[in-house]
Amino acid sequence: MNSGFRPEERVLKIDNADDPRLAPYRNIRERDLVGRSERFIAEGKVVLNVLLSSARFEAESLLVLESRLNGLEQQLRLCPPTVPVYCVSQDIMDGIAGFHVHRGILAIGRRKAAPSPAELLSGLPDRALVTVLCGISNHDNVGSIFRNAAAFEADCVLMDETCCDPLYRKAIRVSVGATLKVPYARQGTIDDIMAALAREGFETLALSPSGAQSIYDAPSAPRLALLFGTEGEGLPKALLERLRTARIPMSADFDSLNVATASGIALSRFSRFS
Amino acid sequence: MNSGFRPEERVLKIDNADDPRLAPYRNIRERDLVGRSERFIAEGKVVLNVLLSSARFEAESLLVLESRLNGLEQQLRLCPPTVPVYCVSQDIMDGIAGFHVHRGILAIGRRKAAPSPAELLSGLPDRALVTVLCGISNHDNVGSIFRNAAAFEADCVLMDETCCDPLYRKAIRVSVGATLKVPYARQGTIDDIMAALAREGFETLALSPSGAQSIYDAPSAPRLALLFGTEGEGLPKALLERLRTARIPMSADFDSLNVATASGIALSRFSRFS
Repeated sequence: MNSGFRPEERVLKIDNADDPRLAPYRNIRERDLVGRSERFIAEGKVVLNVLLSSARFEAESLLVLESRLNGLEQQLRLCPPTVPVYCVSQDIMDGIAGFHVHRGILAIGRRKAAPSPAELLSGLPDRALVTVLCGISNHDNVGSIFRNAAAFEADCVLMDETCCDPLYRKAIRVSVGATLKVPYARQGTIDDIMAALAREGFETLALSPSGAQSIYDAPSAPRLALLFGTEGEGLPKALLERLRTARIPMSADFDSLNVATASGIALSRFSRFS
Repeated sequence: MNSGFRPEERVLKIDNADDPRLAPYRNIRERDLVGRSERFIAEGKVVLNVLLSSARFEAESLLVLESRLNGLEQQLRLCPPTVPVYCVSQDIMDGIAGFHVHRGILAIGRRKAAPSPAELLSGLPDRALVTVLCGISNHDNVGSIFRNAAAFEADCVLMDETCCDPLYRKAIRVSVGATLKVPYARQGTIDDIMAALAREGFETLALSPSGAQSIYDAPSAPRLALLFGTEGEGLPKALLERLRTARIPMSADFDSLNVATASGIALSRFSRFS
């Protein structure tokens, strides 16, 4: 800790809100709603830790409140010397971001590569648990599902092209960084994904309130994929008809569970830890 | 359906945003953040259905978009004749509420009585499952936990006095009306609640990442209380030391689960349906 590392020598203090180096951080909230790219915003220390230790993502730059620098020595050591660390006052940070950034730590991250479902699956061990999402377009739900996938060590998450981007700012935040941690692919139709899973010898269990078996009776498999659809519509009927289906046993009197909660229950049931 | 019921004869059309009858609906969002009372806002058709069929809550009035009246025949029949149903245009509704009310259905609800934990427990059957919350102050989490309690038919929810109000607008909405459905008490310290549970012969299982047993190994009990604390701090140490504890088995490498997800997993494990 006292090895002579001086944070103030690593950081670039910026006093002018119009400094072009701050452009990627400008109006984060608005850009979030309209655009998407290979770049994303990471917020807070926990997410920054995940980003800086990721093999699939890298930091482009950091933006830190001057009052937070002292607690970040470990992160600044981990940060490659080519990655600039900008430091500003609270006023400047809030003005740039477009809202009050109370955690005081932002980073611009970038994805190095976007593997296909087939590429992800080909690298998995003989025993593997995969989470498959069809049509999940709510960022909170996607973030929560990734958090659960990390907690129960799902090997990857496969999302069809109608799912929302897990690198959306809110999805990353709700996931506590898990969208940067659990390998995922988001491309193709759900049928493409099912075909890739079948080629790799995965058994699929589709979760549905009308599923044929209770998840507690349904057998596991060495290579198991758990498939989740939206809360309202559910999974496409044609898909449910040709897949093995399971339900989370619950009251007949109440609306279905939230899909993220359902993923937590099913992942817990089929994880290697249970 | 065609029995001559005419919604337009049941409703009071209001064209003036300053009409004093609309006062309870004014600036809903702001009042939500500062005050609380026995009154609350119910939003949307599903929540309205729960409110209108509740024994513990009653509607004071309804405020409906004129374009939504046609789909509400069933609800208007259920609504006691003494409860006024106001009807406005979208402009007036948005102006009154202070935001765009896209579901177009609001109601002011009122709690009839607030039973104590002891009163709630004394009415439970020999086999019962109770959810106990200590210090859960996030409205999303409280709403989600109630949704799970309803899905798995927990008999009631007991909250210590440091938990937030489950009648907060967002908690009701996230719970899909379950905070109006599952009986609850919110009063006293967690020690008071533990004492009331013990008097009624409940076994308590405290959920904690450092719990002694896996939830899948921990035995159930005819009368079982599941205790959940906050995500950050967790349950008070003194409490954990004297209670039976259980953990949801998961990765050692990742941050703990969201408390609402944890409640879903534990309730599913110990519910009568599993």
